[in-house]
Amino acid sequence: MSKRIDFQTDPSKYRHWKVSTDGEVATLTMDVDPSAGLFEGYELKLNSYDLGVDIELADAVQRLRFEHPEVKAVVMQSGKDRVFCAGANIRMLAGAAHAHKVNFCKFTNETRNTFEAAGAESGQYYICAVKGACAGGGYELALACDHIILADDASSSVALPEVPLLAVLPGTGGLTRVTDKRKVRRDLADVFCAMEEGVRGKKAVDWRLVDDAVPNSKFDETVAARVSEYAAKSQRPADAKGIELTPLKRTFNDDGGVTYSTVEVEVDRAKRRATITINGPADAAPASVEALHAEGAETWMLRCARELDDAILHLRLNELELGVVVFRTQGDPEQVVAHERFLLDNRSNWLAKEILLYWKRVLKRVDMTSRSLVALVEPGSCFSGVLAEILFAVDRTYMAEGDFEGDNRHVASITLTEANFGPFPMANDLTRLETRFLGEPERVGAARERAGEALEAFDANELGLVTFAYDDIDWEDEVRIFLEERASFSPDALTGMEANLRFAGPETMETRIFGRLTAWQNWIFQRPNAVGEDGALRRYGTGVRGEYDLRRV
Amino acid sequence: MSKRIDFQTDPSKYRHWKVSTDGEVATLTMDVDPSAGLFEGYELKLNSYDLGVDIELADAVQRLRFEHPEVKAVVMQSGKDRVFCAGANIRMLAGAAHAHKVNFCKFTNETRNTFEAAGAESGQYYICAVKGACAGGGYELALACDHIILADDASSSVALPEVPLLAVLPGTGGLTRVTDKRKVRRDLADVFCAMEEGVRGKKAVDWRLVDDAVPNSKFDETVAARVSEYAAKSQRPADAKGIELTPLKRTFNDDGGVTYSTVEVEVDRAKRRATITINGPADAAPASVEALHAEGAETWMLRCARELDDAILHLRLNELELGVVVFRTQGDPEQVVAHERFLLDNRSNWLAKEILLYWKRVLKRVDMTSRSLVALVEPGSCFSGVLAEILFAVDRTYMAEGDFEGDNRHVASITLTEANFGPFPMANDLTRLETRFLGEPERVGAARERAGEALEAFDANELGLVTFAYDDIDWEDEVRIFLEERASFSPDALTGMEANLRFAGPETMETRIFGRLTAWQNWIFQRPNAVGEDGALRRYGTGVRGEYDLRRV
Repeated sequence: MSKRIDFQTDPSKYRHWKVSTDGEVATLTMDVDPSAGLFEGYELKLNSYDLGVDIELADAVQRLRFEHPEVKAVVMQSGKDRVFCAGANIRMLAGAAHAHKVNFCKFTNETRNTFEAAGAESGQYYICAVKGACAGGGYELALACDHIILADDASSSVALPEVPLLAVLPGTGGLTRVTDKRKVRRDLADVFCAMEEGVRGKKAVDWRLVDDAVPNSKFDETVAARVSEYAAKSQRPADAKGIELTPLKRTFNDDGGVTYSTVEVEVDRAKRRATITINGPADAAPASVEALHAEGAETWMLRCARELDDAILHLRLNELELGVVVFRTQGDPEQVVAHERFLLDNRSNWLAKEILLYWKRVLKRVDMTSRSLVALVEPGSCFSGVLAEILFAVDRTYMAEGDFEGDNRHVASITLTEANFGPFPMANDLTRLETRFLGEPERVGAARERAGEALEAFDANELGLVTFAYDDIDWEDEVRIFLEERASFSPDALTGMEANLRFAGPETMETRIFGRLTAWQNWIFQRPNAVGEDGALRRYGTGVRGEYDLRRV
Repeated sequence: MSKRIDFQTDPSKYRHWKVSTDGEVATLTMDVDPSAGLFEGYELKLNSYDLGVDIELADAVQRLRFEHPEVKAVVMQSGKDRVFCAGANIRMLAGAAHAHKVNFCKFTNETRNTFEAAGAESGQYYICAVKGACAGGGYELALACDHIILADDASSSVALPEVPLLAVLPGTGGLTRVTDKRKVRRDLADVFCAMEEGVRGKKAVDWRLVDDAVPNSKFDETVAARVSEYAAKSQRPADAKGIELTPLKRTFNDDGGVTYSTVEVEVDRAKRRATITINGPADAAPASVEALHAEGAETWMLRCARELDDAILHLRLNELELGVVVFRTQGDPEQVVAHERFLLDNRSNWLAKEILLYWKRVLKRVDMTSRSLVALVEPGSCFSGVLAEILFAVDRTYMAEGDFEGDNRHVASITLTEANFGPFPMANDLTRLETRFLGEPERVGAARERAGEALEAFDANELGLVTFAYDDIDWEDEVRIFLEERASFSPDALTGMEANLRFAGPETMETRIFGRLTAWQNWIFQRPNAVGEDGALRRYGTGVRGEYDLRRV
């Protein structure tokens, strides 16, 4: 699995999904091409999926929000007879490296969260129209929708057969959404998750596994009725015209680095480190909403979000040995504020709002990135507002103090704005500053009083916004020592430590999926009962069951 | 590690702890005997601990609550010079089987929760007086106390050096308590958890790691002052006389079974199953508070709690291959209600209250037991009130319906009481019925309206109290099929599934410790970076660092 995985696509390249829109309704049809797997060695039968299928889905969901603002309800359905979706492809899982499996699960989880959030945040609701077998990851697709309609016939059922069949967990939020979103009674959830064959018809409704079970004769009319109900709840603008998400301009280097228009990724494989530099806007903020729409995908705030998102996904899936990601910025801090201010001032406009919501998702992608994250606030940097959020997303922040000899860039500073106090909550539903100051909540207020100021190191440190501040004499050594030390620790222990330290405070379905379910799945993905020579994943399809070490731990 | 681990002890047998009391103050001194490890192959140097040390601590905490009701503040301190506690013994961890490590961590976590709860629930507060190095599990002992006083000198520090030194996590709640109890800022927590040497003096206070840092000259007076402050908050009765926790009467069989006075444990190793039968009270409930005190440890509610607790711990640590634990009861349902009623009616009495609080802990021990749990409500059973809680703690409940041919015992029924609606919350701070009916909260009320009735299978099923009800024609087959099926699944997948399904609803520090931290630690305990030939745990003390696979997942 050494070819580069590309997270950029567009509908003209899709092999697995079809998207059509008709006024306020879109239809998203899953029709996986068995021969178009991302890697060799498996066929994507029965609408089973691999990462490539999910990359298309993520793209489709994203485009529906930006390119089709008029859409209020999305019907997710299968293009195959008698099967909705068989879940993640087992042979792909059996053959994939542990790190690929884990990052595959993380990305699919993020994608599920994306269309689950589309209804709540943007009034673009997902309705899952299930005909045929809907199993494992297939049912997890349905679970992330706002409403599930199941055909009441002999061949349609929902199931989570992972435990009995594959000795792994439903890894894309299934267990969590069954108990916490759909609130299925826990003993019934136990029965459901221990059966291979799943549940059909009325029982699926009684157990709260689906919302409707209707005979085929009434299926289409029920779907239409639900579409109307959800569309009626939506505040989406009926007459808005979307913008096109044009292809990103990127150049990949041989060493893993990438150059985008606003983002530069440098990779030092020997030192196991990537550096992401975000360059602030060169041009002024749009002068009007019309100008914003005219700029479309070119507007700095959207372009930067898309590029940063792509850069992080590239590092996650293609550069598995990098242990540390360093975030830098360069540019005019006031220009960043101006661009962001424009969107915040115009958030009643759907496009301005969508760009802000996209930043929310990108910042969560940073939070969830399982590498040691550090930000360097250097001379010439522009950590303002939304970019300053990165300082509170990373594990540590180092800030340069005062003038650096021979460096004529402006002195390092941090500018807080409204963006740091509400619009970009973490998965725990708190802002990053609220999470940071859980023990001293008065500090959030103290920081807020200084919003708008370019805070230099002394003030930033006093306010608790950075971990360390060093002048030019100590800066280089201190940063180098930290980076070297971090690269020397066990990556596993760091993964576990960071996952536990990053999300203090309240838990949500999302923190539970990433914090708890993922941890259990990581463990199970290591265990011979699942992945060993005689484990269930390897033996799947051979007609012979997995052989298990029967000790409970 | 095949000798039987015994969870029963008493102060006359302690090798590692000294307990003394002086009026309202107790002192708990850790002075580990290096040569008295539970197993061969390691020495418990520097107040490091193994399960045997923790069994004594759990016993001491329990006895302070029952035998010393007059104690309001407990000072935890070290009996060694220059070291408070070095944490869990590394050579023990390096040599222990995975299942032992995991269950060791679980028991130590439960013990930490016990003394953390003693202050909040019973007004018996723990004050940790730290002199010398307090590292890893040592600092986790301190973190579970209500207050931490650190000597401000060159040799006293707190540290969580697991990640840099051992490539594992602080596994006894350290990460969670640092972020969620003490609310240490997350970047400072990152720095703290990545340093071997720990933090001393004023910085430890500034970072919120300890409550006081005082010079040795003022150490004793500060401890005394804090003791007075906490004692003043306590509502413990000053003149109460404790009861003695007399030795349990037990007989162990060769096959892993145990016979207690109220509890019978049968083990079928071939079928990988244990059956725990609880026998209801033979005698009437105490007639008065004086009678309760006179019965002391013999009173049925306390005796049964102690025996059930011991039985579960025995199965967890000594019978690692058992996959399923079956809970049965036999006895007079009304007698159970009478005994429980007496305690609930007299909970203003310290002893009645402590027995109820002990049941709360025992029921949580059931929740946390990582085996498939099933309850069988059979003819002759007495699942009333506190025993009915077991039905809602297990993964599934099977109930016998109506008369069973040739069986003259009373028809199976369930009696709900006040005990099912408040006094025994789970780790998520909800009652088990609230957790069960998260999706249909009105069902809690519906069940409550039927409290006091002996509900037979039809009603119990309608109310959602049981998973399945079968008459005598189907009963045996259905139960057998389930038990066989369950025993055939991968234990790892079941562990992960059950851990995710059992604790729906809100999260607390406790659910986070057991659900999230434990899962990550389980994973890390499997990884070669920690436990492989060249891993950090194995190499500890050799002067050579662990060799790590550097891929991040």
